[in-house]
Amino acid sequence: MREVEVKALLIDPIQNSPVLLLKDQQTEKVVPVWIGQPEATAIAMQLQHKEFPRPLTHDLLRTVLKIMNGELDMVVIDSIQDSTYYATLFVRDKEGQVHEIDARPSDSIAMALRTGSPIYVSDEVFEASAIDLPDGEEGQSPVERKKFQSFVEDQMHISDFKRFIQ
Amino acid sequence: MREVEVKALLIDPIQNSPVLLLKDQQTEKVVPVWIGQPEATAIAMQLQHKEFPRPLTHDLLRTVLKIMNGELDMVVIDSIQDSTYYATLFVRDKEGQVHEIDARPSDSIAMALRTGSPIYVSDEVFEASAIDLPDGEEGQSPVERKKFQSFVEDQMHISDFKRFIQ
Repeated sequence: MREVEVKALLIDPIQNSPVLLLKDQQTEKVVPVWIGQPEATAIAMQLQHKEFPRPLTHDLLRTVLKIMNGELDMVVIDSIQDSTYYATLFVRDKEGQVHEIDARPSDSIAMALRTGSPIYVSDEVFEASAIDLPDGEEGQSPVERKKFQSFVEDQMHISDFKRFIQ
Repeated sequence: MREVEVKALLIDPIQNSPVLLLKDQQTEKVVPVWIGQPEATAIAMQLQHKEFPRPLTHDLLRTVLKIMNGELDMVVIDSIQDSTYYATLFVRDKEGQVHEIDARPSDSIAMALRTGSPIYVSDEVFEASAIDLPDGEEGQSPVERKKFQSFVEDQMHISDFKRFIQ
């Protein structure tokens, strides 16, 4: 399992869908995760430290968790099935019991950013989908470069990206 | 305070925004509440008893509440300020203490539909925004009819409505 951080939130112009780049803290590799527009907004607001005049759904979720004396220990993006990523929220109740809750990666990350909880990617997901950082091509092996180029060419036109956050 | 039910979820073609019609249980009047697209999707899924393959954000919120042994006693749409509706979730923790949580009406209703909790509208909101049901024009007073027509002409082109739910 590897701890990751949200490196960027981009728009994939081909699929016209937001994509999160989760960077491994130990290497220069990133795991791209495609997410929905509402969750992208919730994540962008938090990354930019912007506050909406009214609580967004994830703000409400954070408040409910806090009022019930719950804590989000961590979130784990743990598997991929048919191109869908699965994640788990590890929620600790006031008695100290930890509950594992099935969730989408987007909701998990929107929550982890709000509670300051660590984000992990399982080895399975990392091995299946990690690529080198788009800007860090130096020192790549030919295989890695090919994988990156394929990713760029097939999925994203990086020059067209509208970067919300660097 | 009046208990209401979700009568319809419509699209306002002028503002291109979803609008919920909340019907007073005691009369034929409805309170229209404009909401965002993601929350409309969350409400429509629940009204149509459709289940998404993965949990939506409100499903996650319901699961967190359940795991923490919390209950949603009721939601109240309690005020309007500058055309913005405010709502409160009344959440009971496992010790029986009730917490009032500030929320948007859309999130409140998406949650109430999932937990089977009653939805109330304050007298203030009802008096400020209730109109007669679009299809129930018979027996209206001239004042009521004028108010309804103004609503229809200014805000919604009812003939153009795409009805998700009747």
